[in-house]
Amino acid sequence: MPRPSPLIDAVAAPPIPEARAWTQRYDGRYGPLIDLSQAVPGTPPHPALRGRMAEMAGSAEGARYGAIQGDAELRAALADEVAQRYGGDVVAGDVAITAGCNQAFVSTMIAIAPAGSAVVLPAPWYFNHKMTLDMLGIATRPLVLDAENGFVPDPEQIGRLIDGDVRAIVLVTPNNPTGAIYPANVISEIMDIARRRDVWLIIDETYRDFIDDRTAPHALFAAPDWRRRLIHLYSFSKSYCIPGHRLGAAVAGPDIIEALVKVQDSLQISAPRTAQQPVAWAMTALADWREDGRRQIAARAATFTAAMQALPDWRIDAIGAYFAYVRHPFARRDGAEIARRLASEAGILVLPGSYFGPGQDGHLRFAFANADPSHIADIPRRLAAWRDSAPAMRT
Amino acid sequence: MPRPSPLIDAVAAPPIPEARAWTQRYDGRYGPLIDLSQAVPGTPPHPALRGRMAEMAGSAEGARYGAIQGDAELRAALADEVAQRYGGDVVAGDVAITAGCNQAFVSTMIAIAPAGSAVVLPAPWYFNHKMTLDMLGIATRPLVLDAENGFVPDPEQIGRLIDGDVRAIVLVTPNNPTGAIYPANVISEIMDIARRRDVWLIIDETYRDFIDDRTAPHALFAAPDWRRRLIHLYSFSKSYCIPGHRLGAAVAGPDIIEALVKVQDSLQISAPRTAQQPVAWAMTALADWREDGRRQIAARAATFTAAMQALPDWRIDAIGAYFAYVRHPFARRDGAEIARRLASEAGILVLPGSYFGPGQDGHLRFAFANADPSHIADIPRRLAAWRDSAPAMRT
Repeated sequence: MPRPSPLIDAVAAPPIPEARAWTQRYDGRYGPLIDLSQAVPGTPPHPALRGRMAEMAGSAEGARYGAIQGDAELRAALADEVAQRYGGDVVAGDVAITAGCNQAFVSTMIAIAPAGSAVVLPAPWYFNHKMTLDMLGIATRPLVLDAENGFVPDPEQIGRLIDGDVRAIVLVTPNNPTGAIYPANVISEIMDIARRRDVWLIIDETYRDFIDDRTAPHALFAAPDWRRRLIHLYSFSKSYCIPGHRLGAAVAGPDIIEALVKVQDSLQISAPRTAQQPVAWAMTALADWREDGRRQIAARAATFTAAMQALPDWRIDAIGAYFAYVRHPFARRDGAEIARRLASEAGILVLPGSYFGPGQDGHLRFAFANADPSHIADIPRRLAAWRDSAPAMRT
Repeated sequence: MPRPSPLIDAVAAPPIPEARAWTQRYDGRYGPLIDLSQAVPGTPPHPALRGRMAEMAGSAEGARYGAIQGDAELRAALADEVAQRYGGDVVAGDVAITAGCNQAFVSTMIAIAPAGSAVVLPAPWYFNHKMTLDMLGIATRPLVLDAENGFVPDPEQIGRLIDGDVRAIVLVTPNNPTGAIYPANVISEIMDIARRRDVWLIIDETYRDFIDDRTAPHALFAAPDWRRRLIHLYSFSKSYCIPGHRLGAAVAGPDIIEALVKVQDSLQISAPRTAQQPVAWAMTALADWREDGRRQIAARAATFTAAMQALPDWRIDAIGAYFAYVRHPFARRDGAEIARRLASEAGILVLPGSYFGPGQDGHLRFAFANADPSHIADIPRRLAAWRDSAPAMRT
């Protein structure tokens, strides 16, 4: 019988369902499962946003195809926000709306990197980025990051990984899985390298609304040549608590937008309509609510940081936005085994560092945005009690 | 500066926006524009379906990620319908829900055909299929079809196009652009060739609900080995009048479903939630309404066929489901020029055959599903008046 593509056979299985399956054996002894596995918002969308989405979903217009590039209102609203936040010249024509930021990444890769080319990807990486590169036959040039540098890539090391096959450098900031927020000057230096070496800089800023600082996350959009170098990716899922509606965007120059329109027409025709115009409205009308969401998640991060001080041998190596990247104390053990046991024995579901690339066995990703603060505060007690009850884990 | 992928540079621009631009020069002299360019439903969704979609879009649940493979209710409902209509063993586990049928095709291609492999594609083809193959670096083995055979492919000719690089045969029935409905025995013979030559048979049946015959469109699902050979693609957009909600599906065996789940996780995480459970309900609850929609479109086809008898030198070479494929009388002229002039001078927007592959210059695609019957009836008068007014077109 015919087989799937050899490329797809080599792609890892989606990690979150695999990890969730571990929890089936948890007997509830420490209380309800604490699910820190997926980056999902902890609250539903604002009622007024839900009302507008309901209205669109119930309308004749919401059932029609939209423009391939996305609804004009949403493209304009995102362009305005990016121009204002980053201090640059960005217009609606620079924006392509996608069905989520994962799709923006896939479409961008098809748009710039044929099979056989390569991309520089810092590790730990976002697993869907690696899966996408693998299934499209695009080679990964990994840059393994150090906890000592706060998991921020060194621009010079990136430069050394670029050869004639490399089409792009991919950055995620605030980072998934580490939470690290890359300093603006580091991002600028990496852009200089992309410029000199004639490769694209792709920067996924899905979590940018959760940075506790209203200044520009970087200065790239202020450069007059940004459209010839930069591809910025964004997700509306986290900021507006609408992952189920699938809405993301790419911001880029005309060559890339033209290419993305070809990809999107074939992949999607148009992004789903329901959330596009409502979110365009919400970007300004619900700015305060969005900011409240950021504060809530920042408070969860603070709760997590404070709680974990009770367990000095569990070290938070990086934290920010949605995630903490934590070194567990079982240096000689396989990280996936630790995560599996935490899920099935302690009722704490986190993802092992090994899901995020090479050299990550010592770490676990805690996605705390979706967790009840009282559960977050309870994590150290559970970890300690579990360890005491599991003789093999005491070393 | 870095460039887009050379593969994407070679992909044609999305045809429908290009064609729509031609209409800007139409001065309205023959009445309002008759837009027969895109395969879109002519009516909004049923009010009860809109109500359920509005409820889902306004809910907390509708804003959450769903299962990668799709909501269980919709997978079960589609499996039941396919099992019943086609007379085969099909279960919910065989179904993967996608954000539209274009996405089902892209995901399937990533799942089975690495760059450098090839696919047999009858021409005229659905332009997004060709764009997808081109951008993924998959070669097309075209089989140019004859009007004399009603644009139905000859199984033997397909067999002759299969070499060691070919991973799949792609069929679309009812066909886009011709409207041709492939006979069940021809489909069976093509499946036998796929079996013997060890390639996948991919059969896109987006328009199957518009066949005026409730018997099984083919017997493939009744074969005990279907899961090892067949990948069936479907769209909910046309049957439920919901293209803006983006909902499609692939039906396949476990190896392909496992591969599609990897692709879909990276491409989409989950399909948009809004329409999934409402459509699962509508499949049985609104069966009569769906059948009314089919009858309406069949009536438009009949109106078109009757009307065109007034112009014997315009020949309907194939008609069915959503489309008529019409031979225009200007044999020595470029089809794209004819379509451009019809749009800008006569206010009739159809797509030139040249958008659908090689050897199609003599044909135009009329997508009549979205057109008012009185406009359809008026087409011959317009065509005749336009031709009389355009001296160069009289030959």
